[in-house]
Amino acid sequence: MADPRFFHKVGPFTAGRIAEAIEATVEPADQADRIFSDTGTLEAAGAHVLSFFENVKYKDALAKTKAGGVVVRPDHADRVPAGAMRFLTPLPYRSFALAVQMFYPDATVEPAVDDSAWIAEDAIIGTGVRIEAGAVIEEQAEIADGCWIQSNAVVGRGCRVGAGTRIGRGVVVTYALIGERCRIYAGTTIGTRGFGFAMDRRGHIDLPQLGRVVIGDDVEIGANCSIDRGMSGDTEVGNGTRIDNLVHIGHNVRIGKGCVLCAQVGIAGSAVLEDFVVLGGQVGIGPHSRVGTGVQMAAKSGSWRDVEAGAKLCGVPAVPIREFHRRNVILERLSRDRNARDDQS
Amino acid sequence: MADPRFFHKVGPFTAGRIAEAIEATVEPADQADRIFSDTGTLEAAGAHVLSFFENVKYKDALAKTKAGGVVVRPDHADRVPAGAMRFLTPLPYRSFALAVQMFYPDATVEPAVDDSAWIAEDAIIGTGVRIEAGAVIEEQAEIADGCWIQSNAVVGRGCRVGAGTRIGRGVVVTYALIGERCRIYAGTTIGTRGFGFAMDRRGHIDLPQLGRVVIGDDVEIGANCSIDRGMSGDTEVGNGTRIDNLVHIGHNVRIGKGCVLCAQVGIAGSAVLEDFVVLGGQVGIGPHSRVGTGVQMAAKSGSWRDVEAGAKLCGVPAVPIREFHRRNVILERLSRDRNARDDQS
Amino acid sequence: MADPRFFHKVGPFTAGRIAEAIEATVEPADQADRIFSDTGTLEAAGAHVLSFFENVKYKDALAKTKAGGVVVRPDHADRVPAGAMRFLTPLPYRSFALAVQMFYPDATVEPAVDDSAWIAEDAIIGTGVRIEAGAVIEEQAEIADGCWIQSNAVVGRGCRVGAGTRIGRGVVVTYALIGERCRIYAGTTIGTRGFGFAMDRRGHIDLPQLGRVVIGDDVEIGANCSIDRGMSGDTEVGNGTRIDNLVHIGHNVRIGKGCVLCAQVGIAGSAVLEDFVVLGGQVGIGPHSRVGTGVQMAAKSGSWRDVEAGAKLCGVPAVPIREFHRRNVILERLSRDRNARDDQS
Repeated sequence: MADPRFFHKVGPFTAGRIAEAIEATVEPADQADRIFSDTGTLEAAGAHVLSFFENVKYKDALAKTKAGGVVVRPDHADRVPAGAMRFLTPLPYRSFALAVQMFYPDATVEPAVDDSAWIAEDAIIGTGVRIEAGAVIEEQAEIADGCWIQSNAVVGRGCRVGAGTRIGRGVVVTYALIGERCRIYAGTTIGTRGFGFAMDRRGHIDLPQLGRVVIGDDVEIGANCSIDRGMSGDTEVGNGTRIDNLVHIGHNVRIGKGCVLCAQVGIAGSAVLEDFVVLGGQVGIGPHSRVGTGVQMAAKSGSWRDVEAGAKLCGVPAVPIREFHRRNVILERLSRDRNARDDQS
Repeated sequence: MADPRFFHKVGPFTAGRIAEAIEATVEPADQADRIFSDTGTLEAAGAHVLSFFENVKYKDALAKTKAGGVVVRPDHADRVPAGAMRFLTPLPYRSFALAVQMFYPDATVEPAVDDSAWIAEDAIIGTGVRIEAGAVIEEQAEIADGCWIQSNAVVGRGCRVGAGTRIGRGVVVTYALIGERCRIYAGTTIGTRGFGFAMDRRGHIDLPQLGRVVIGDDVEIGANCSIDRGMSGDTEVGNGTRIDNLVHIGHNVRIGKGCVLCAQVGIAGSAVLEDFVVLGGQVGIGPHSRVGTGVQMAAKSGSWRDVEAGAKLCGVPAVPIREFHRRNVILERLSRDRNARDDQS
Repeated sequence: MADPRFFHKVGPFTAGRIAEAIEATVEPADQADRIFSDTGTLEAAGAHVLSFFENVKYKDALAKTKAGGVVVRPDHADRVPAGAMRFLTPLPYRSFALAVQMFYPDATVEPAVDDSAWIAEDAIIGTGVRIEAGAVIEEQAEIADGCWIQSNAVVGRGCRVGAGTRIGRGVVVTYALIGERCRIYAGTTIGTRGFGFAMDRRGHIDLPQLGRVVIGDDVEIGANCSIDRGMSGDTEVGNGTRIDNLVHIGHNVRIGKGCVLCAQVGIAGSAVLEDFVVLGGQVGIGPHSRVGTGVQMAAKSGSWRDVEAGAKLCGVPAVPIREFHRRNVILERLSRDRNARDDQS
């Protein structure tokens, strides 16, 4: 159970109501009024707790669980111990996530503007907005309804923040238009001057960076990330994309819809990620390269060429994942052979 | 054209005046009074817009451009469509950068000290300084003329910030002397205790870090970087060096003049970069190693040995770039051969 | 000598008193009342300065040093020039660190709560606490005795900060319990929502992150790091662990005692580091993997499997360090042979 210092639980709910909310079918149907008061892992769950099972690696935990109900795929229904209810769905992890959301809904924003916040006279502040201590809203910035600007965040001159978006503690937003329902976490900086200049040993010459950062709706950006504004034209992040911590996005990068960028990824200037691209931790994408829809790259890969849609790559330079493993096996054998020869000589 | 919410354009200017400012020769000379009102890409430029051409990859865009003028190398002058003026220079990108600067000059600093800034009584503040909301200037700090300390930045006890330098929003500067006309972008931290201690399983023992960070003139440091102070002696960044976002610089690192460090580079303690070193994104340099003048390393390379001046390296460990490609080709062939054998068996 | 703008030196001390404090034996014993007024490098040290020698690479500097005393291992005692005192200890670097601490003790915290700090009415603040300008202490947070909360830091609702801990400038702490005598440096963010959701092209579905971050005693965390809170259960950092700058630690990671994580390391969700693990810069550890006690990984390595205690690894994927070098040698030879063949043909 979550620490009540930090998390507020609601409920309980009946099995029937949960099943409806999480898009599952509950069995036995005649017990749909059984009561659930929390969600939890298979190991920790008790009689009124809902858990889930998807990966067969955990089949022993499932066999022993004392959970009152388990979210499972229909073809795993038989594995659920007798006595536990079954919540059947083709996507147990997704349905379980919806169940946890039921019990632990997002905190609602209590509208308030703290006296210590600095707000320019010509800034436009919507209704239901919360602006916390030490936050700064510069001239002509627009903060739409229901936004939550947390302590010590800065929204720069002329920026627009869409309805329901949260700007985390210490975040800096400049030269940016941000969509609705986004969450930008602590310490992230958006709109920094792109790294653009003419190299010159007498002194590098700035190329003024005259673009913006345009972020879609429902985007999540982790902590301590940096997203540079465009040089000419915009740096873009598409609807529903999720970005983890310490990620760098260079100027004029365009990221599509629903992408997933793990921690410490770096995207060099003018690269394009089409929709639903998934990049593992510490991946690097070279400048001006295009990564096709649905591409997946393993952690630590580096790619500086165009990658066709659907490819699954690994390594530096990134190659298909099977090719990566094959090359490793080859090196391993060469090394073993050499060792054997060394031993004989 | 740049969004006027964020960018202020000046001008227009005559071709002659532009040519002079960007160190180019304009042709036809008798049209030197033609008017230009903006800069832009070859694709987007119109009759009063100046564009540029350098990379032959874009020759089709040049052929079709409607730009009123194009900055080009003399040997490309013939490629510029009839009707467009030619601004001839051996360094088109550099000259174009200067042209963009003409139309979009840096914002001037409006001197002001916000009431909500916290400034120690014995801090020394020059003339023409702007200090924004929530900024903190600690005891005995010195802020020279024309500095711009942005919202929620902190300049620690005893630090010195040179004339005309900008300290970005949320930046933290401690134990540091910073030169003139530098720009330190949002979220960067300078002067943190170096990672120095005697390892001991009974409890690691701190080695007090008694050095400083000394930054030259005209240095640009991106967002969310961290630069540690020296252990004994200083961590140094030379004049005109440019550092991108999320870069780590360890204690006692010495970086020369005019270097270029791309995003997410990490330089371990006591490494030395001589002048004009260029490091691609995510490069790592090992402790106590020396990287010679003009060395270039491709993105994601890792080097822990001394590197001689002028070398162009790639890989982990870093090897000459041709050698890196040769090894990749060898692995590729070994893999193909093995595949072929597997198919036959 | 350290810049007095920034560092405050105490002393002088007699050789005898120093020897006792640093767990060394001083020779000649009859000169134990000789006076030392500072510490320094072999090259810079003068007659009243204490230096140290451990690595034979610096034997020439030792031979020429003018230091009044040198901390050395007993088997190196003969190398110390006549006239200089010898401070004998099996761990010279550790003893020298203790000596530097004598001359440059940590600044003591002057208790004070700045008027511009924002402190919730129901926050609990211990005695001897310093809270600086612009800091925010949210509802129900507990700040124990002797803590130092620096400018513009934020301690979120319900968090607990143990006695004697320092929270650096601009740091953000949420959903966390932090032990005693920790130091969290500038710009670091703790307690961010973990990167957990069910991927779905119709819109990724949040899995609420209901855990905390629990940090032990005597932990040091560098600048601009991010540590996510657990999904269910906690993200943990054990006693005495040291973390450098720009490090990412994902949700539900568990890090043991006395570990050392160099800059830009990334630890993916649910990974476990047992005690005394040492990771070089830019290392990546994959999700759900376990790294055994005392494992050491070279900079830039990547590992996504379990690693047994005591292993020393390098590369991506990480292999034993000798194997890494062997494979490099093999590639080097293949490349040389191929070159030779190309030359002949």
